[in-house]
Amino acid sequence: MKHTRRLATRAFRAETGEFLAEGPQAVREALTVSGAVVEVFATETGTAQHGDLAEAAREAAVPWHVVADDVVDSIADTVQPQGLVARCRIPESSLAALLATTPGFIVVCADIRDPGNAGAVIRCADAAGADGVVLVGDSVDPYNPKSVRATVGSIFHLPVVVERDIAGALTSLRDLGLQVLAADGGGQLGLFDDALDLTRPTAWLMGNEAWGLPARTRDLADHVVSVPIYGRAESLNLATAAAVCLYASARARADA
Amino acid sequence: MKHTRRLATRAFRAETGEFLAEGPQAVREALTVSGAVVEVFATETGTAQHGDLAEAAREAAVPWHVVADDVVDSIADTVQPQGLVARCRIPESSLAALLATTPGFIVVCADIRDPGNAGAVIRCADAAGADGVVLVGDSVDPYNPKSVRATVGSIFHLPVVVERDIAGALTSLRDLGLQVLAADGGGQLGLFDDALDLTRPTAWLMGNEAWGLPARTRDLADHVVSVPIYGRAESLNLATAAAVCLYASARARADA
Repeated sequence: MKHTRRLATRAFRAETGEFLAEGPQAVREALTVSGAVVEVFATETGTAQHGDLAEAAREAAVPWHVVADDVVDSIADTVQPQGLVARCRIPESSLAALLATTPGFIVVCADIRDPGNAGAVIRCADAAGADGVVLVGDSVDPYNPKSVRATVGSIFHLPVVVERDIAGALTSLRDLGLQVLAADGGGQLGLFDDALDLTRPTAWLMGNEAWGLPARTRDLADHVVSVPIYGRAESLNLATAAAVCLYASARARADA
Repeated sequence: MKHTRRLATRAFRAETGEFLAEGPQAVREALTVSGAVVEVFATETGTAQHGDLAEAAREAAVPWHVVADDVVDSIADTVQPQGLVARCRIPESSLAALLATTPGFIVVCADIRDPGNAGAVIRCADAAGADGVVLVGDSVDPYNPKSVRATVGSIFHLPVVVERDIAGALTSLRDLGLQVLAADGGGQLGLFDDALDLTRPTAWLMGNEAWGLPARTRDLADHVVSVPIYGRAESLNLATAAAVCLYASARARADA
């Protein structure tokens, strides 16, 4: 139990290769991935309300521990884990393995700091049909409980890679034939400009919540692309800007 | 000071018609609106760092009080108000006044509960060039400090109306010739379907974060429209779904 609680910290997640999935939706998604779940902690109410999940765990030979309410609360980061927390294995992932799948649509987040934003971008990348998400630089751990929760299951749907070396990651993607598009205000191209070919294999590069992309990172992109502002807002927030860019790509790819 | 602190509560904001703008960006935007700011509370550091704002306040005959750091902290809801909080007047607004402007692009949020989401949608509506935002049903107060902060100034850029009566508001918008598009999973139309004419005057209807739009509200729309999911995510979150829908409209209107 103490082991499980310590998964709230990044260091212990890195040491053990494990993380927590909280709430019925995350536990359901986790159970669909073979070998992802080590064990489930559930309250009596959680067990009664989610008999299908208890059954799925039994079939997968995943231990399902019925514990007191305060035990689940003490493990979970979420205020309302709805009676269920699963201890899960972080899937093996690497930039090399992702590149080996010859992806055509990648999202790269540089120095993203807020776990809720990281989770929202991963969810959005999944929805838009991206082949993977790469968190580069000094980014938040995508297996942070708040991030996992914000992905609403998408953390189990597509490869999520953590890679410190920004320049190395972008160079690898370009070597593979992807155009790198940096989403940033004041770009040379607008997102809806005809000159921008979003049917091409593309890696979208998103910057930090507060300061965006530093010039040296922007310079590694093929184009700096701005979401047009039709009103008086100065910009969009990270997750909504990512949504608009990723769906522009998804739409162009679907039409192609 | 006690008066100002009480503006953290919705009841007192309603009673006084006032709200708080926290941090330099919000204060800057507030000062651009004639008569919006009653007074500014600033730390010595905040005053020194934002001499342009102190000057703008002086020119507008808005009192600028230099106070101790803990006073600003005690007024502000934000953890880091960066030394500045303005007491502001809530602009006069009503659905009737908004309709009188014959708007062509409106965002309606039904039962939106999270202030951060409300703020993000208002910011996004501003960026996409919408003519106004209407919060209907049992929605969060857009002048909640967390919402104001999430708008990053957009609360001062476009009319934001609070209106309890959902059916009445939607009927008024339709009577004015706007198509009402309910954004919801499982709609008859996909957002990028040719059958959807986004160049027409449009009111986008967004639902609650957790349960979306109830059937009786969806039934008031001309079309239920879904953001297509190209991957395995079940849905997008409210703010990102709104961003994708509003920018689809913005793009169609810009191209028209």
